[in-house]
Amino acid sequence: MATPIIQLGLGPIGQGIVRHILARRDYDVVGAVDPAPDKAGRSLAEVVGLEAGAPGADAARSVTVRASLDEALAAASVAPVLAIHTTSSFLSQVTPQLVEAADRGLNVVSTCEELSYPFHHHPDQARAIDEAARRAGVSVLGTGVNPGFVMDLLPVCLTGVAASVLSVHVDRVVDAGTRRGPLKKKVGAGISLEEFHRRAASGTFGHIGLVESVAMVGAALGWTLTRITSDLRPKVAEEPYESPDVRVAPGDVLGIDQVAAGVDPTGAERIRFHLQMYVGAPDPHDTVRLEGNPPLELTIPRGTPGDVATMAAVINAIPQVIEAAPGLRTVVDLPVPRWRRP
Amino acid sequence: MATPIIQLGLGPIGQGIVRHILARRDYDVVGAVDPAPDKAGRSLAEVVGLEAGAPGADAARSVTVRASLDEALAAASVAPVLAIHTTSSFLSQVTPQLVEAADRGLNVVSTCEELSYPFHHHPDQARAIDEAARRAGVSVLGTGVNPGFVMDLLPVCLTGVAASVLSVHVDRVVDAGTRRGPLKKKVGAGISLEEFHRRAASGTFGHIGLVESVAMVGAALGWTLTRITSDLRPKVAEEPYESPDVRVAPGDVLGIDQVAAGVDPTGAERIRFHLQMYVGAPDPHDTVRLEGNPPLELTIPRGTPGDVATMAAVINAIPQVIEAAPGLRTVVDLPVPRWRRP
Repeated sequence: MATPIIQLGLGPIGQGIVRHILARRDYDVVGAVDPAPDKAGRSLAEVVGLEAGAPGADAARSVTVRASLDEALAAASVAPVLAIHTTSSFLSQVTPQLVEAADRGLNVVSTCEELSYPFHHHPDQARAIDEAARRAGVSVLGTGVNPGFVMDLLPVCLTGVAASVLSVHVDRVVDAGTRRGPLKKKVGAGISLEEFHRRAASGTFGHIGLVESVAMVGAALGWTLTRITSDLRPKVAEEPYESPDVRVAPGDVLGIDQVAAGVDPTGAERIRFHLQMYVGAPDPHDTVRLEGNPPLELTIPRGTPGDVATMAAVINAIPQVIEAAPGLRTVVDLPVPRWRRP
Repeated sequence: MATPIIQLGLGPIGQGIVRHILARRDYDVVGAVDPAPDKAGRSLAEVVGLEAGAPGADAARSVTVRASLDEALAAASVAPVLAIHTTSSFLSQVTPQLVEAADRGLNVVSTCEELSYPFHHHPDQARAIDEAARRAGVSVLGTGVNPGFVMDLLPVCLTGVAASVLSVHVDRVVDAGTRRGPLKKKVGAGISLEEFHRRAASGTFGHIGLVESVAMVGAALGWTLTRITSDLRPKVAEEPYESPDVRVAPGDVLGIDQVAAGVDPTGAERIRFHLQMYVGAPDPHDTVRLEGNPPLELTIPRGTPGDVATMAAVINAIPQVIEAAPGLRTVVDLPVPRWRRP
């Protein structure tokens, strides 16, 4: 029998996840929530752009997007067992949503980057979510590609064949020029240096989740990290860059160059995660390097793709989250999420 | 408090594991079993070649290697909670040993390749071990580098960011010339073609565990594999090969070239694992390729090293096996084994 799911948040990633799930036989989307005026009240098929005849279009036409979780639950033909949550990167915004979902008896898989490992940077919110989940006997997980895979699960997995590890380095280079418009905008492609520094000072610019991955890996490997640092710099154009949807003049910003690191009580830097995400980045790749015995290196040439892999990471984690012990979980606590034939 | 461990089998890998564990603070080796006349009755420190003053040498001098598990348990200062088992690649030999260990209340991590996923090829032995483990409330796991990592855990982990998978390919190339003597011998470096075919016909020659990895990945991804094939060929020298400990004349054997594959009911080959292990192999590497959406590739340049990584895989799985639900487990059932600061 198909597992009934509810979708919370219908931005581009939420819409993509719904389309993927509707094309599978093992999940049913029995409800969807998005309060945006152009979404609430319309059919899910319309909102996610499913033509009549597309896989799952009939099912999606029978679901109306609702402005609140309780309205969606009241309208659902079957009670969902899990919510897919794709509303925001920030715990301050999503904590009430996650607590509400847990209170309604829903397991949750979320793309919220700060949720991937909130115990270090947001202990109060982590505790509130964990307590709500335990009270309800459900599990909550934040995952995706990064955080969720490239800079946490993958390096932790690689340490499994190491007799000792001195440090963990991950380099991820993404050519934002090959990605959808919002990502180019997110990394600041085309803005001035002045604007970059203004946004950086806001604290919500740049890629979210690096420091969470540092904290997750530190905890998984038993390192006490007394300092977790984060450094965000602009990648500046030396030559003009031009593509159909973005132009960057020399001296302006191509994207971000971001480093998060973890230092132990002896002052040794144990973890260093480096993310470069800018238009025109040459040689995109993900590389994990472990110093230790033996030294180990692992590369994903061209890098783990962004959006489709993020959607996949969320969908593939569903069975593990439903099976997990109640509480707020992290991706390294669970049997590895894997694709499974629908 | 350190976790008390007992070592079953003191061949090269078992000895290496003991040396690694003795150098850590989180495990104590409280017993060791090997019936070989040159081992039983001697001190563990002597058998594993620990000089006085080496880490753990004092502890190892206080342990006498015994010929049987019951003798070792009777002599142990503390009851061990887990046995590390490194005696044989073949379930027919190890099943009674594993059942005995489970009956004595011991969790087990084993390097037995056929144990990594015995449910397909050895269902009766799998059931006997699983029942003994459940009866005793302990867990049993077979793991290592291959099987245990390169051709099962790693590709399954990579599918976690795939929205669909059509096939899984892994290529592993090992230069046996850089490995210890027994491995060169195991792959047949220097023997004639005639001798190769004679050994191949015995059914116990070649690398053990490839078909187990195929079955494990098939089950993890939900594919019904109606046929699992295995093909073992010699890698033949075209030019003379010479190293300090092996000479191969043209026309003789450098090592093995082995393929295991899994085919589904439609006749589609879903899984293809290719292992080349021979002296002088150029460009050693492990590469995982997934056909699907998105296509994904992952490479470990120079390849996952053999012995030290195997020992590490076993040691790193100990906490997961102790925590696991009782029964016969596989490496993809558990939270990923990881190195942890001792």
